[in-house]
Amino acid sequence: MTSNTSKHLNGLPVAQPGIGELTAAIAEGRSSSRLLLEEAQRAHERHLDLNAIAHVDWPAAQARADRLDALARAGSPLGALHGIPLTIKDLYAVDGMPLAAGSRAQMPSLGASEAVAVARLRAAGALIFAKTNMHEIALGATGENAWTGDVKNPHDPARQAGGSSSGAGVAVATGIGVAGLGSDTGGSVRIPAAFSGVVGFKPSFGAIPLAGALHLSWTCDHAGPLTRSVDDAARLFEVMSGRRTDHGAVPRRPRLAVPAKWLAPRMSHSMGAWFESVLAGLRKDADVIDVEAPELFEASAHYTAIVRAEAAYVHRDALAAGGSGFAPAVLAPLQAGLQVSVANYFDGMRQRDALRAELDAILRDYDALVLPTTGVPAPLRGQTEVQVASGVMSTRDAVLGMTAPYSYVGLPTISLPCGQVDGLPGSLQVVGARDQDAALLALARWLEGLWSSSRGGLQYS
Amino acid sequence: MTSNTSKHLNGLPVAQPGIGELTAAIAEGRSSSRLLLEEAQRAHERHLDLNAIAHVDWPAAQARADRLDALARAGSPLGALHGIPLTIKDLYAVDGMPLAAGSRAQMPSLGASEAVAVARLRAAGALIFAKTNMHEIALGATGENAWTGDVKNPHDPARQAGGSSSGAGVAVATGIGVAGLGSDTGGSVRIPAAFSGVVGFKPSFGAIPLAGALHLSWTCDHAGPLTRSVDDAARLFEVMSGRRTDHGAVPRRPRLAVPAKWLAPRMSHSMGAWFESVLAGLRKDADVIDVEAPELFEASAHYTAIVRAEAAYVHRDALAAGGSGFAPAVLAPLQAGLQVSVANYFDGMRQRDALRAELDAILRDYDALVLPTTGVPAPLRGQTEVQVASGVMSTRDAVLGMTAPYSYVGLPTISLPCGQVDGLPGSLQVVGARDQDAALLALARWLEGLWSSSRGGLQYS
Repeated sequence: MTSNTSKHLNGLPVAQPGIGELTAAIAEGRSSSRLLLEEAQRAHERHLDLNAIAHVDWPAAQARADRLDALARAGSPLGALHGIPLTIKDLYAVDGMPLAAGSRAQMPSLGASEAVAVARLRAAGALIFAKTNMHEIALGATGENAWTGDVKNPHDPARQAGGSSSGAGVAVATGIGVAGLGSDTGGSVRIPAAFSGVVGFKPSFGAIPLAGALHLSWTCDHAGPLTRSVDDAARLFEVMSGRRTDHGAVPRRPRLAVPAKWLAPRMSHSMGAWFESVLAGLRKDADVIDVEAPELFEASAHYTAIVRAEAAYVHRDALAAGGSGFAPAVLAPLQAGLQVSVANYFDGMRQRDALRAELDAILRDYDALVLPTTGVPAPLRGQTEVQVASGVMSTRDAVLGMTAPYSYVGLPTISLPCGQVDGLPGSLQVVGARDQDAALLALARWLEGLWSSSRGGLQYS
Repeated sequence: MTSNTSKHLNGLPVAQPGIGELTAAIAEGRSSSRLLLEEAQRAHERHLDLNAIAHVDWPAAQARADRLDALARAGSPLGALHGIPLTIKDLYAVDGMPLAAGSRAQMPSLGASEAVAVARLRAAGALIFAKTNMHEIALGATGENAWTGDVKNPHDPARQAGGSSSGAGVAVATGIGVAGLGSDTGGSVRIPAAFSGVVGFKPSFGAIPLAGALHLSWTCDHAGPLTRSVDDAARLFEVMSGRRTDHGAVPRRPRLAVPAKWLAPRMSHSMGAWFESVLAGLRKDADVIDVEAPELFEASAHYTAIVRAEAAYVHRDALAAGGSGFAPAVLAPLQAGLQVSVANYFDGMRQRDALRAELDAILRDYDALVLPTTGVPAPLRGQTEVQVASGVMSTRDAVLGMTAPYSYVGLPTISLPCGQVDGLPGSLQVVGARDQDAALLALARWLEGLWSSSRGGLQYS
C-alpha cells in the first residue's frame, strides 16, 4: 500500500492515511506492517539529511513487523494500533534501544523496564521501530544539537525543526512512521509539530504516565503524540492514558477566547495577518471573543526558574562531574538552575497557582482558548532574534512564550496545522479545560473538518 | 447539666459526655449550649494557670449560645454539632477574633474570610467560643512560648503541654469546651493530645481544607481535632472533611504492625515497659507482628529541611523585616530555612516519595502500624534532653521523631490515651492507610472499647 497523498505542501505529503484506515487495511490483508515499515524506510532514506532519527535497526524492525503480520493473518484479536510503525523520542526507555537524549553526558538511570507509555503502545500492537533526535535533554525548542547535528525543517532545511521533539515532528511530516511519541515541558510537542506542519497534542498534566521517561522538569513534563490528524492523536492518547475520548462533544456554536491584546505585540506581521484570517474563517461557525490574559507573560520568568531548577536536579550527578557532556548552550541554563533559591522556586509555585486559577476561570466561560502556536513561523537555524510587531524579540520568547504557559499549568493543548505563513506551515494552538481532553479533541476534530471542507478562507499551496 | 465524670486521672475528668450525648441532650431540652459554655467558663477559671486560652469573649459567646439554644427550642433542624462549645487553635482565621499564632511578628494575610474548616464547624451549629494558645507559628512541639507564656501540662504544671496545638489539648483535658481544632505538621495534634491525655486525630493529607489557616509547611500541614473520644473525633472529622466514616469496619482479628527494632532504642525504659504491656493486652484480640522500618529515622533530616524551607517562605516578609517579632528559639530554625537549597528541598521530596512507598506497602499488608505517640511522657518545661534506652537524646527527637514521619507522608494517624507512664498519660499512636480514615477511626473505636472493658492489663488511677 502506498500513501494516497491528496495534496502536497513544499513537496511533503500533507494528507496521508490515518491509523483507523491503516489498521483496517492490515486486518483485512490489504496492507501489512511490513509494507508500512518499508514505506517508513524509504522516507528515511529520502530525508536522511533532515536528521530525524537517532536510532533504528531495520532488520530487527522487519522481524517484528513480520511477527505482527503473522498474527494478523492468523486472525488473532488485534490491538488498536496493530502493526502501525511509530517513532519514540530518545528520552523514553525502549527495550533493546539505547537512550542518549541527544547528550554526551551520563543520563540518570530510569530503571530496568521500558517506559510505561511505550509499553502501552507496544501492548496495543504498535511497531516501535526507531528513536527520534531531539534538543539535548529536551532543554530547548530549536532542534539544534551540537552532538547529534541539527534536526532540519522538512519545508526548508535552512530552518529550525523546532523542539525538543524535533525528529518526531520531521518523521511524521516526511512519512518516517505514521506517528511519533514526543514530550512537552514548555512546547516541545507543539512547536516541532507546528514547524513541521503536523498535529501535536499535549494532554492534561499526568494523563499519560512518565515512568521510564527522562524528566526535564517533573512538574511541567507531559508525554504527547505527534500525528497526521486529530483522530490519530486521539487513538494514541487513548492507548497511552487508558482514558476514552468518544464522549467529547462540540457545542452548536463553540465559544472561543482569544487573548488578543496580549498576542498582538508578540506575533510577526505575517503571523498576525494569518491569525486574523483564521479567526475570520472561524467567526462563521463559532463565537470568537477577545479576553484579558494579564498574567500570561508574567509567568515566563517563573516558568524558566522552575524548569532550570528541576533540570539541574535531574542532572545533578553529571553536573557534579563537571558537566562536560553537555553542550555549552545546555550547560549554561543547567548551571543557572543550580543558582535558583528555594524562595525563587516557591515564588514560581505560587505564581503558577495564580495563573492556573486565572486560566481555569477563562476555561469555565469558554470552550477553548485559541492562539497561534508560535509568534513566528520556523526561524532560520542559528537565528537568535526575530522581528515581531513590537520590535526585535529573542527567538525563545517568540516561540516558547506562547506555548509554555499551558505546560506550566498543565492544561490540555493541541497544535493544528492550518494554511501557511511566509510559505511555511501555520498552526493554531487550542487550549482546553483541565482534564477535559476528550472535549478538546472533539473541538480539534471539528476545526480540522471545518478547514478541510471550507478552507476557512486560507490559501493552501 | 454537669459532667457525669466516672473516673479521674491526676484530678482531671477522663470520661466526660461525648458530642452524641450532648447534642441529644440539647435537642431534647435536657441541656443547652449556654450551660455547656458556663461549664467551659468554670473550667477556664479553675485552670487559668495552665494558660490554654489565647482569646475568649465570654459575653459574645454567651449571646451566640443563647441564639443556638433559641433555635433548638424553636424546633429548627439542628446541625451535627449544634450548641457544642469548641476551641480553635490560634492559627485559623475566625470571624471576630484576632490571629497572632503565638507570635509578635506580622503574620501573612490569610484573606478576608473565616477558615474553611472553622466555617464548616460553625455551619454544623458549633459554638466557636475561644482561640487556644500554641507554640509560636506552630514551629515546635513543647508549648513553651516566650511571648504568651508557656502552656502547662494539666497533669503536672512543671511539665510541657506538648505542641504546637498546646492549648487545644489542655482545653479538652480540663473541660474548657468539648473539643478543639488543632493542626499537625509533625505531631502538633498528636503530641499535645498525648501529653494532656486526650484523643488527637491527624487525618489523611488534604482531607480537611486548610484555606484560611496559617501555613507552617504546606506540604506537611494537616488540620485535625483534639477530643474526648474517638467518636467525637469522627464527628468533627465528618463535618470538616465532608467525608462519611460510617463504612469503616474492623477485621475479626486485626493485624497490627510494630516497628519494634526501630522503636526499642528510642523509648525511655518506662515507656518501653508501658508499650510492652499495651501490646500484651492487644495480643488477646489482634495479631501483633514486628516489621522492619529501616527508612523511618532517615526521614527526619529531610523532614526538617522541608518544613524549615517552607516556613521561612511563609514568613519571608517578617524575616526580611528583621524577624524581631520571633522569639530566638523560633527565629533560628526560620533563618536556617533560608539556607536550604533547592537541591536539599528536592532531596527531601525524593526521600519522602520513597518513605511513602515503603509505608504504603506496610499498610497494604497490615490493618495499622502501632507505636507510642512519643518516646517519653511529657518532659519538664525547659528540658532539652531526655534519657531513652539508647542513651541521652534531644527532647525534640524523642518526641517529634515518632510522629513526624506520618505528617511528612500524609498518612492518617490517631493518638489514643491509654493508661499511665510515670504517673502521666500514655498514648498509643495508630497509623492507617492513605485516605482510609474511616477504617482507622473504626479500629481506634475498637481499641478504645477494648481498653474500657478489659483495661488490657493496664492500671488506671
